[in-house]
Amino acid sequence: MKKTMCGTGQIAGCRFSLYPMSDRFVELILGALEATDLSKVWSKTDEVSTCVRGKAEHVFDVVKSIFLHCAKSGVHTVLNATFSIGCPGDSEADYYMTEDDHRLNEERSRLIAVQTDAQFSLYPLGTPDYMDTIYDIIGLAREEGTFTKGVHYASGLQGDAHDVFATLEHAFEQARTSDSTHIVLTANIAAHSPSRKS
Amino acid sequence: MKKTMCGTGQIAGCRFSLYPMSDRFVELILGALEATDLSKVWSKTDEVSTCVRGKAEHVFDVVKSIFLHCAKSGVHTVLNATFSIGCPGDSEADYYMTEDDHRLNEERSRLIAVQTDAQFSLYPLGTPDYMDTIYDIIGLAREEGTFTKGVHYASGLQGDAHDVFATLEHAFEQARTSDSTHIVLTANIAAHSPSRKS
Repeated sequence: MKKTMCGTGQIAGCRFSLYPMSDRFVELILGALEATDLSKVWSKTDEVSTCVRGKAEHVFDVVKSIFLHCAKSGVHTVLNATFSIGCPGDSEADYYMTEDDHRLNEERSRLIAVQTDAQFSLYPLGTPDYMDTIYDIIGLAREEGTFTKGVHYASGLQGDAHDVFATLEHAFEQARTSDSTHIVLTANIAAHSPSRKS
Repeated sequence: MKKTMCGTGQIAGCRFSLYPMSDRFVELILGALEATDLSKVWSKTDEVSTCVRGKAEHVFDVVKSIFLHCAKSGVHTVLNATFSIGCPGDSEADYYMTEDDHRLNEERSRLIAVQTDAQFSLYPLGTPDYMDTIYDIIGLAREEGTFTKGVHYASGLQGDAHDVFATLEHAFEQARTSDSTHIVLTANIAAHSPSRKS
């Protein structure tokens, strides 16, 4: 049974960390944060990660921008991100829900092209039929041409960062229309990996 | 309703990546892998991550050892790990299930003391009662003294790496006795972070 987009107004969020494998990691991370307009999301950074919350499209816009502005340095950079929506234990606090759908960072992000290898996992919680949703989402990634192969506990994606992020966002949005009202999607997205087979 | 440890013989696994924020990241990662005895787990490294599979205690033993042998360099090091057991879509392949419970790396790991900040999330899949399990596990972390605070989408842990890894392993093991037969636990464990408040 499909929901009829009842979750449209929900708070989406992402907890992420950015790992530039370089002695200059502090300036690279701070530079990527400064290059990104965060004004349409709530955000907070702690010792381990950064959390952004708001409308899903702005959450994805911000996270992609931060990754791209770090990866354009040419340094081996990995983003680890957990996107989440609908957690019943979450508080109705710490978010911005602007009515405006315009993505503040997309125009500048589009100027950056980076090839990526990624792995993602989807966890639709609270329902016995969650594997059906997972298989549907793998089908979506296949259709979009970013899917490479399944591995234990994850699915591989490859391609330009914009295509990979598009698949992740579409996967998240499609999973929201499933039986599960609490969707978690984790992803590791790597650029400039020396172990990349290309 | 509790299961009576029917999952004892199951294949556990972990997909993880190690991020030493240093120009020397390749030698640090390879050094940590070489310093760790992997002979009781199946393992495979690809462009994005490494996967190990076998009995849960050996999976945790290996992952902790790899993190510690990298973090002892003093470089800001983060481990991102997804522990999993019971995925119905997983194949019954690629694992070692030695009868022996002796942890091959514990003795050498014990010689390394590293303070860590960590965040973890638990995803008990396939059951509507999963939030109860999550709250139970947060209670366990509080009892063990490693819990710091809840944040959006995760719970914070802090302490010596051995204590933090012990909590993660106990959380994983306790969650296996819940209604859910498919348990996923994700964790980010950081050492030598310049943003650490201590």
